Amino acid sequence: MTKSSTELLNWMKENQIDTLICQSRANVYYLTGFDTDPHERLVAIFLFENGDEFFVCPNMEVNQVKHIYSGGDIIGYSDTDNVWQLIKEEFNKRNIPMKKVAVEKSLSWDRMKEIQQFNGDVELFEVDEAILNQRIIKSEEEVVHLKEAAKLADYGVKVGVRALKEGITEMEVLATIEYELKKKGIREMSFSTMVLFGEKAGDPHGNPGNRKLKKGDAVLFDLGVVCNGYCSDITRTVFFDHVKEEDQEVYEVVLSAQEASISLCSPGNKISQLDAAARQKIADHGFAEYFPHRIGHGLGIEVHEYPSLNATNNSVLKAGMTFTIEPGIYVPNKVGVRIEDDVLITNDGHELLTKFPRALTIVPCT
Amino acid sequence: MTKSSTELLNWMKENQIDTLICQSRANVYYLTGFDTDPHERLVAIFLFENGDEFFVCPNMEVNQVKHIYSGGDIIGYSDTDNVWQLIKEEFNKRNIPMKKVAVEKSLSWDRMKEIQQFNGDVELFEVDEAILNQRIIKSEEEVVHLKEAAKLADYGVKVGVRALKEGITEMEVLATIEYELKKKGIREMSFSTMVLFGEKAGDPHGNPGNRKLKKGDAVLFDLGVVCNGYCSDITRTVFFDHVKEEDQEVYEVVLSAQEASISLCSPGNKISQLDAAARQKIADHGFAEYFPHRIGHGLGIEVHEYPSLNATNNSVLKAGMTFTIEPGIYVPNKVGVRIEDDVLITNDGHELLTKFPRALTIVPCT
Repeated sequence: MTKSSTELLNWMKENQIDTLICQSRANVYYLTGFDTDPHERLVAIFLFENGDEFFVCPNMEVNQVKHIYSGGDIIGYSDTDNVWQLIKEEFNKRNIPMKKVAVEKSLSWDRMKEIQQFNGDVELFEVDEAILNQRIIKSEEEVVHLKEAAKLADYGVKVGVRALKEGITEMEVLATIEYELKKKGIREMSFSTMVLFGEKAGDPHGNPGNRKLKKGDAVLFDLGVVCNGYCSDITRTVFFDHVKEEDQEVYEVVLSAQEASISLCSPGNKISQLDAAARQKIADHGFAEYFPHRIGHGLGIEVHEYPSLNATNNSVLKAGMTFTIEPGIYVPNKVGVRIEDDVLITNDGHELLTKFPRALTIVPCT
Repeated sequence: MTKSSTELLNWMKENQIDTLICQSRANVYYLTGFDTDPHERLVAIFLFENGDEFFVCPNMEVNQVKHIYSGGDIIGYSDTDNVWQLIKEEFNKRNIPMKKVAVEKSLSWDRMKEIQQFNGDVELFEVDEAILNQRIIKSEEEVVHLKEAAKLADYGVKVGVRALKEGITEMEVLATIEYELKKKGIREMSFSTMVLFGEKAGDPHGNPGNRKLKKGDAVLFDLGVVCNGYCSDITRTVFFDHVKEEDQEVYEVVLSAQEASISLCSPGNKISQLDAAARQKIADHGFAEYFPHRIGHGLGIEVHEYPSLNATNNSVLKAGMTFTIEPGIYVPNKVGVRIEDDVLITNDGHELLTKFPRALTIVPCT
């Protein structure tokens, strides 16, 4: 039984929950250390109020799970087994009443119906807050993984900047970045890498393609990697050969907005203050309408996780939280600039996990 | 209104459904042509029995959606909006009773609760079968995309085979494959690429790492790409420098199993026959216990989609279906061989979409 599951057990006792079921990839990894993309197949951990637990996964995964998980029985199933029938048998063996069951909000309707068939009057509770309140404060070991992921994200930007040359396409630069990261052992990017040139950066969710690099283009990199199950997420915007005057203004406003927000990253401040500080700077320069998204998002096992850093979140920052700060200005069909770093709240302030320079950078056309 | 949504409307009328809500990435793409990874944010299409519809997405995506979707209003929302409140207003405007609502099985519990709050006595129905029955038969246009994806999967294997040399690691080969594919414009692999050497191929879900290539190793490649939203999925196993006698036997059994299964790929045959034919060949040679998974899975917008090709699925093959045939033998800590192709059922038989040679291949150590 891990520290995390001991805390969950206490939560179950306080709330008279007899059974807890986790089946989201992130929570299963958090509670057991086992990470896999199960596609449509069920991978889940079942915890009971008496401290007993078991793990359910496809037969194919059982060997790997054995190396990692020692909390209880491992129930494997084949592609022709009815996995919920097997689970029911485990419940019967254990004499679990299954009256008050905690599940994740992300639980799908079809799985919910399976659970409800165990017992007509099962009462369902949300477990999310209990787990997220643990996950939101990173342990020292988690911070080690996040720092490693951030370091490799910095490296990815460095590779991207070095690859820039006149006429190269967005996809060619993207391919080079991922190649160098994969050679370093990175199996998964934390999301679909973004490399956008010039006016294409003016769309906050643009798609890299065959756009060729021209002198005077902005180049927006947004990327991250997964290291030991933990994500990084960095954005840098640089300029190729030279920077247009109006683009330089946009860049400086975004940088000052990010700095205003980061300077408030200390325990005790409210999340909404971070959003407001950046938004105010951007509004002061007349760009309010071009900053359409929140200031950031929590970062950990998931690249977007709890908490959401938006204007209406009045939760208070605590040491051990990690999240992104990523203001942006997107002028449609003209230019886009976003600057994003991964921030750890420390006892007396913060530490930036991503460290690639943020000063306006002009990449020479050699 | 697309052909797909017209068919859905007929299904709604037959079943007296007043509202249909799709919010899975795959179904939203199928029905609207818009593809994005929305992370935790809602992207959904709402269809009504009178033929009206609207699309919901974050403000950031509205510009891209406008280029693709013309079926109805586009409702954008910001990170601080309550998106379900905005949706409720759209319902009120339209005077939708929302008594019988069809949703996907994958709908999460928290979204379900939002829908149930619209109307205390809303009755929920599963829409999955109605959509999957359309998606299972691919249109000519979809087949074009699947063929393009398959061709690039073949190319990925070719790049991987060419990269083999003594001492290279699994991750280095993997990086080279993805680099060449991304340079060709592929933004997303259809799943996490697998390159496994020697005994590591003996785990059907092994993880590529720093294992170095040695003479006599089996090399298992399992990879696929996404082209215009459609997936490919190929596995090839080759041998480096030479093949051990016992590995050659395993290879030949897997190949004969795959051929037995593929030879039955014709309209009118049952899916279970495909699994049985391959499983029998493998059992005849005493390897039954080393083939722990189903013979294949449907392939389309999702890399694993309906139907599941397993021993108990007695559905009948129809022209236009596309799926994988992928028998394997995994001898733990010794060797693993899997051969996988993408198959299209035609009016009078089948066509293999992946075409990389399947004859036993020994890659010379130059």
